[in-house]
Amino acid sequence: MENFTFWTPTKYVFGRGVEMQAGQLTASMLARKVLIVYGGHSAEASGLLGRVRESLTEADVEWRELGGIRPNPTDDKVREGIEMMRADGLEALLAVGGGSVIDTAKAIAAGVPYEGDFWDFFEGKAEIGDTLPLGVILTIPAAGSEGSGNSVITKIDGKVKISIRTEVALRPKFALMNPELTFTLPPYQTACGIADMMAHIFERYFSDTPCVEITDRVAEGVLMAIIEEAPKVMANPTDYDARANIMWSGTLAHNGVCGTGRKEDWASHAMEHEISAVYDVAHGAGLSVVFPAWMTFMAKNHPEKGAQLARRIWGVTEADDHKAAIEGVMKLKQFFKDLGLPVTMDELGVKEPDIDLLVERLHRNKGAVIGGYYPLTSTETRLIYQLTL
Amino acid sequence: MENFTFWTPTKYVFGRGVEMQAGQLTASMLARKVLIVYGGHSAEASGLLGRVRESLTEADVEWRELGGIRPNPTDDKVREGIEMMRADGLEALLAVGGGSVIDTAKAIAAGVPYEGDFWDFFEGKAEIGDTLPLGVILTIPAAGSEGSGNSVITKIDGKVKISIRTEVALRPKFALMNPELTFTLPPYQTACGIADMMAHIFERYFSDTPCVEITDRVAEGVLMAIIEEAPKVMANPTDYDARANIMWSGTLAHNGVCGTGRKEDWASHAMEHEISAVYDVAHGAGLSVVFPAWMTFMAKNHPEKGAQLARRIWGVTEADDHKAAIEGVMKLKQFFKDLGLPVTMDELGVKEPDIDLLVERLHRNKGAVIGGYYPLTSTETRLIYQLTL
Repeated sequence: MENFTFWTPTKYVFGRGVEMQAGQLTASMLARKVLIVYGGHSAEASGLLGRVRESLTEADVEWRELGGIRPNPTDDKVREGIEMMRADGLEALLAVGGGSVIDTAKAIAAGVPYEGDFWDFFEGKAEIGDTLPLGVILTIPAAGSEGSGNSVITKIDGKVKISIRTEVALRPKFALMNPELTFTLPPYQTACGIADMMAHIFERYFSDTPCVEITDRVAEGVLMAIIEEAPKVMANPTDYDARANIMWSGTLAHNGVCGTGRKEDWASHAMEHEISAVYDVAHGAGLSVVFPAWMTFMAKNHPEKGAQLARRIWGVTEADDHKAAIEGVMKLKQFFKDLGLPVTMDELGVKEPDIDLLVERLHRNKGAVIGGYYPLTSTETRLIYQLTL
Repeated sequence: MENFTFWTPTKYVFGRGVEMQAGQLTASMLARKVLIVYGGHSAEASGLLGRVRESLTEADVEWRELGGIRPNPTDDKVREGIEMMRADGLEALLAVGGGSVIDTAKAIAAGVPYEGDFWDFFEGKAEIGDTLPLGVILTIPAAGSEGSGNSVITKIDGKVKISIRTEVALRPKFALMNPELTFTLPPYQTACGIADMMAHIFERYFSDTPCVEITDRVAEGVLMAIIEEAPKVMANPTDYDARANIMWSGTLAHNGVCGTGRKEDWASHAMEHEISAVYDVAHGAGLSVVFPAWMTFMAKNHPEKGAQLARRIWGVTEADDHKAAIEGVMKLKQFFKDLGLPVTMDELGVKEPDIDLLVERLHRNKGAVIGGYYPLTSTETRLIYQLTL
């Protein structure tokens, strides 16, 4: 096991009606003048934004609003938010939405106190220092951003999608998580979220660090819970308990507890980021295409961890590692298909992907070699992209 | 799933040599004048206290010391610490040890800012308000106190052992966890720690709350890791990776992640606290006696969760719930025996336990009915105590 730091100070308040605590928690943990960040019209139409405003008013919290954050969120909205906060002397952020909204709010939180352009953080030109405090009301279980110190933003100029990770600076102060708020998610979005959270675990699970049984077992536990509960939310979108299990799984998938003490991988995320940056597809759907391809490659070249996964979570009994790992990939593909997710580029809606472009962009943006479990150069990433066809 | 709050702000720094960060973390997260709390001479003899002092000196932190904290820690040392801190204007605490040391430091941290006697908190006469900040250097993986908001203290007058639980007030600011510091633990103490952490999971696992798959699976994962790694640490006390797995398992067992969204039980802990209060045995050894007895009772009266546990972590294939649960108890007993732990009062060294006294004390101290999974009156607790014979 490798040395690690695990620091997750976010206060999670989970259950029915918890969004009505937004005002009180904002006043006590964040500030009296905040920027509400949200996405499309559903937050308004569902009445959620109305309830949040009511709760803030009762707690004597002032606010301004920045709406219109879209999936694969872009740098322009971050700059707009930074300017609004500076202009109006706002002191904190309240993100109402899923990963795109939260990631935008995080980038704003880091950008406001910084003299340069916030994109410096994403390009590694500057380290994040002070950040403004951030609270979250989660509406989409997927990205795990409510519990992570991460943010992913796409720069419109050049369609560069970059993820940054901090130990604690970008973690929300609180996250209000009401599973009822996810009842109205369209089935495809629900399924994409499930693929995203499973991918967050896979990225940590596929590790070469030996003797990390505790972290393996916790990761497998979260995966098994997702596998058990996902069909229930697809069959009955208003099944509170199933929604609750999926929502909390998404947080545990990405708050770090599935990755302690080991080297992680993250090549699949890097490969997917290029797909969603170029073709603007849903991140989770891109992952349900990339991950089985990546795992197929690993089954041949480095099958140990895939075989363990197949045996422990999919009940595969095959003794040969390569064959067991392949059986696991088959199970995963079927699982994704049953959720209505694509497992090929074609099914994803990308009829003739420009693999040359994807490979070129990938290694330009992420380096000549990517991945912690098995190092991939452009030779291998090309092969894996081809396996998605 | 029930509504819950999960808030674990402790910064865990885990790995080889991390105790040398004590000074820097104390200076940055706690204060410049601290009270070091520790147990017996082993902390001194091993050189650990020396290294901690060196680290504090380098960081310009002043300190005083309160040693001599014993297992089943007592109220007198808490009052001694409170007086020392007040007299010398100390602002924070650094606990160097296991659960007894940390629990003592927590009680001091709560007691110093309080005008009345700290025992009021344990008797429920007062709510914990402000607490002094606390850092931990863990030397015994067992109680999970490094990551919990709990403290257990025994009042010498009347031998009353009481546990209190706070959401966040008593959680340490940081915990330094170097598995190497546990290499020299005597085998029996190592084994007692393992029983203690398993018990912390069982108390949360045995729940009547339906549809808590994610929490069940995480709890089972931690248990399976412990079952895998425990024989390794017993066979080779200096196996770093096995020690690391056990150490981190002990934290996850009790920081709350194994109990989210459900009613918990805690009857077995209450029953054991009377045994260790009256007979001064090791808490973990008392638990390895009480838990199989409690589970045997449940196998007959409420077998569902025990059967699930048996099938999922012990590989039991029996279809009948009662029989499966009993098979699980047999596996657990054998596991404890293999670790060198007692599973009867006689083996615990309590030749003729006064069951009348234990039952009378239990319900006087903990109420007429105890337990969340299955309510136990004195009729049932007497029966369970008898099952330990």
